[in-house]
Amino acid sequence: MKKIILLSFLFISPNLSSQYKVDKSRIESIFYNLKKYGNNANEGNDRVAYSDFDIQARNYLSEKLKSIGAKVHTDFAGNLIAFYEGANQNLKPISFGSHIDAVPNGGHYDGQVGVIAGIEVLETIISQKIELDHPLELIIFSNEEGALLGSRALAGKIDEGTLMVKSASGYTNGEGVNRIGGDSNRIFQIKRSPGDIHAFLEIHIEQGNNLYRDNIDIGIVEGIVGLKWWDVNIYGFANHAGTTPMDQRKDGMIAAAQFILMVNKVVNSFEGAQVGTVGRIMAKPGVPNVIPGFVNLSLELRDLSSTKIQDMFNVINQNSKIIAQKTSTKIEFSPIDATGDPALMDTRMMNIINQTSRGLGYSTLVMPSGAGHDAQDMALIAPTAMIFVPSRDGISHSPEEFTSFEMIYKGANVLLNTIIELDKIKLD
Amino acid sequence: MKKIILLSFLFISPNLSSQYKVDKSRIESIFYNLKKYGNNANEGNDRVAYSDFDIQARNYLSEKLKSIGAKVHTDFAGNLIAFYEGANQNLKPISFGSHIDAVPNGGHYDGQVGVIAGIEVLETIISQKIELDHPLELIIFSNEEGALLGSRALAGKIDEGTLMVKSASGYTNGEGVNRIGGDSNRIFQIKRSPGDIHAFLEIHIEQGNNLYRDNIDIGIVEGIVGLKWWDVNIYGFANHAGTTPMDQRKDGMIAAAQFILMVNKVVNSFEGAQVGTVGRIMAKPGVPNVIPGFVNLSLELRDLSSTKIQDMFNVINQNSKIIAQKTSTKIEFSPIDATGDPALMDTRMMNIINQTSRGLGYSTLVMPSGAGHDAQDMALIAPTAMIFVPSRDGISHSPEEFTSFEMIYKGANVLLNTIIELDKIKLD
Repeated sequence: MKKIILLSFLFISPNLSSQYKVDKSRIESIFYNLKKYGNNANEGNDRVAYSDFDIQARNYLSEKLKSIGAKVHTDFAGNLIAFYEGANQNLKPISFGSHIDAVPNGGHYDGQVGVIAGIEVLETIISQKIELDHPLELIIFSNEEGALLGSRALAGKIDEGTLMVKSASGYTNGEGVNRIGGDSNRIFQIKRSPGDIHAFLEIHIEQGNNLYRDNIDIGIVEGIVGLKWWDVNIYGFANHAGTTPMDQRKDGMIAAAQFILMVNKVVNSFEGAQVGTVGRIMAKPGVPNVIPGFVNLSLELRDLSSTKIQDMFNVINQNSKIIAQKTSTKIEFSPIDATGDPALMDTRMMNIINQTSRGLGYSTLVMPSGAGHDAQDMALIAPTAMIFVPSRDGISHSPEEFTSFEMIYKGANVLLNTIIELDKIKLD
Repeated sequence: MKKIILLSFLFISPNLSSQYKVDKSRIESIFYNLKKYGNNANEGNDRVAYSDFDIQARNYLSEKLKSIGAKVHTDFAGNLIAFYEGANQNLKPISFGSHIDAVPNGGHYDGQVGVIAGIEVLETIISQKIELDHPLELIIFSNEEGALLGSRALAGKIDEGTLMVKSASGYTNGEGVNRIGGDSNRIFQIKRSPGDIHAFLEIHIEQGNNLYRDNIDIGIVEGIVGLKWWDVNIYGFANHAGTTPMDQRKDGMIAAAQFILMVNKVVNSFEGAQVGTVGRIMAKPGVPNVIPGFVNLSLELRDLSSTKIQDMFNVINQNSKIIAQKTSTKIEFSPIDATGDPALMDTRMMNIINQTSRGLGYSTLVMPSGAGHDAQDMALIAPTAMIFVPSRDGISHSPEEFTSFEMIYKGANVLLNTIIELDKIKLD
């Protein structure tokens, strides 16, 4: 089977090299060094963006990157950037990277795998003297988990309001960026434009169970799903739970329960891989002996198609009116800012990743990303692609997160050889 | 019609006096003074037990009660007690009272009407020099809404666990009692025994719509429904809302929604006036983009029959197992301490209230109380009765709560003349 794939690969693109390999032991070494900064008692990761752990880890990575021969600086958004000159001074960089910040009590793989693989790829290219025309740029983005801040700043998608938002560390994005060596007063200056970057690549754990379950080495992301959030307010009438007969209630909680099940039903009624979630709920006054007069909850819808998200919302909105009428309540929606449009990956780059992977003997699967990534912002200013590696049982944002060194090694090999191929072509 | 009632009253009990009347303008004055401590922007009441408003209101009432000639102290449970000597030192007090604490954003009548009427009755008796053999005792109970704490302490129904429970103020009952002048270390000493109180009376708004709708002046409570509370924990599995397919979720929120609707259905499936409510809910981690791995909610069931409460719970418990299985979650119940058994009122006292009311020309209705009251605990240690006054549209625990001064005046007149009649008889 492997031979057939290799033959088909040779037939399609006889020029792909795929002979370069990274050093797995160096990947392990960086992993364990990085893990020190934030690892907690239950093997979770407390390295939230802008925390002391974040600063310490960035200092370690900065020294590490200098030691392998890269030029290192932190941009005004707090992105830690390692630069390595190419042979042709006129070409724009091939950029790649991910993030090292985690959700509170998160894992040691989400984001970090992309950074570790990126460093190892850079070290391999430098130490093996692989000559490339394009300069290389490894970007360790700032505050991915909280706001995709670093990548949004590069794509010109932030404003003063973004800087005022408080992050999980307790610092605002503005304060946090300054803590990690950025400059919130000059952050808008780092915006890049289409043409400034030759191509952008990100390796990331899948955060879903498709690759792991089916024992596939490499996921080739076709697009990052868009997501929309709504704040949903349900107005009933607060009344005494002991003296108000069951048939005379305007119970916000009953309306909320019907709403939650209706959302689930509507999302499941569409064809495809879309998801819908109610993750947050609050009832007022919120005591056992009062019928809730008010319930607030969140609605999130995700899909690769903005149209389908809107279609699902329209059905949910229609059904809400029926629920409101039946329960004598009022249901209102207001969109929340933290929304993102779907981002499609560059198909030329997807093909190169596929051929490179197969040239290395790795199995591949084309798939959407249900999670948001820095790559979705980079896609606005550069041809962009993502390489997924398996995540055990699909778990992420948890101390249980795990990807084997073998899988990170394979992902890094794909990144390395994809960069080498991208160096040879003109994309735009 | 009124004449016939009056005649029948004269026939039944020619000795009932019923000529005393309280002062309506003083009722209005106390009402507006008390309202200051906790009134919020939407005319709701934020005077939750143990809050600064609670402390301020108690200070005001303490001064007020001293000014009318009562001896005032706060017992170890934080009950504010006004004492007035009777002619016969050997007799036990006729006690009456209610509470001034409110649910968050509650109203200005629930509990408060009983306290205001009680103070006015005391002032009338003292200022009009109405001679009574029994001493009088006005009790302003502590933390009624959260735990019936003051009355339960008097009935000997609390334990160390009760003191550890956190109240709506954020303070535990132990801390709260100390804040309002009690002593949580000595709280168990205030327990009273049958025989310590001649009789206990409480005026309260109906919190239902029977009196208001049918234009009846006085409700005579035959019994207070029992209630049971459970804390319900639902364990799912927290996972990424973008990457976890709909059919692979263990969504605590979906299980919670099914649970809430199931409770409603089960309660409605029984014959009678029982009620069941889910008033509180919390999901963890509680953010829009994570499937809730944990949901905590409250379950309350009420009925005049303890057996029916248990029967309903058994069905709910059975159905929960089915929901847990279907949603791949685990559902666990733990009883909350703030539970109460059904309490029957003293029929002799009910008759006196009825005759007194009719003697005053007021219409009456015998009815159960769907709400819990301090009287249910007092019924364990003393002959007890309750006088209900109409509550507009049956609304309570809400800023919309309203009872006219005319109705409070009528209730206070019934309380005054009932006390005078109770002074003449031996109950136990």
